[in-house]
Amino acid sequence: MQTATDHLSTTFAALADPTRRAILARLSNGEASVQELAKPFNMTLPAVSKHLKVLERAKLIRRSRSAQWRPCYLEAAPLKEAADWVEQYRRFWEASLDRLGEYLRELQKKEKHNVSKKRNGKKN
Amino acid sequence: MQTATDHLSTTFAALADPTRRAILARLSNGEASVQELAKPFNMTLPAVSKHLKVLERAKLIRRSRSAQWRPCYLEAAPLKEAADWVEQYRRFWEASLDRLGEYLRELQKKEKHNVSKKRNGKKN
Repeated sequence: MQTATDHLSTTFAALADPTRRAILARLSNGEASVQELAKPFNMTLPAVSKHLKVLERAKLIRRSRSAQWRPCYLEAAPLKEAADWVEQYRRFWEASLDRLGEYLRELQKKEKHNVSKKRNGKKN
Repeated sequence: MQTATDHLSTTFAALADPTRRAILARLSNGEASVQELAKPFNMTLPAVSKHLKVLERAKLIRRSRSAQWRPCYLEAAPLKEAADWVEQYRRFWEASLDRLGEYLRELQKKEKHNVSKKRNGKKN
């Protein structure tokens, strides 16, 4: 089932790294050079370049060919497909959060019941 | 920055495979055994088991320990964190879709202009 055009897998694989996600977050504040991107990570330029190549292949960033310092820009379009895919499961995580909430309320109720039982026990 | 508790990277990595996404889609219709999951993919059981292990480590599925056929269940909770992360970029992909729409409208306008110019040229 894996095909060359499986964009969604390429997008998710690119997002599966905290440094690459931090680079995207930085670029959401505006264009940046490789040097600027490398700074906060205390990484070598080749290491950052490697991450940028992954992001570029996934079409999550674009690098200017003209300017000498070749700034990087965020390209968010592939994230729409990722959001659409994940969104299908919203009702399932909402249901599991509801169940968790119910369980916690149940626990609190029991806790209250036990506390008042103890208090009544002491009074008698 | 990569830590043992970087759930988000584990989630995205688990989603970066079309077979694993298809398994989650199948489980959204209800529990299934490894045999049932293997059928539509024409895969060997060990190959499917490998994918299930990745999904289980990412806490996207749960396998029953009690029943003999050990059915798998969807666990959608980690997808909420993934959705929340991607959602931060909505305004960027919406902006880029807007720009694309504008560009297409501009192209159509030019096309119309050229067609009417050609017609007028023929008339004269």
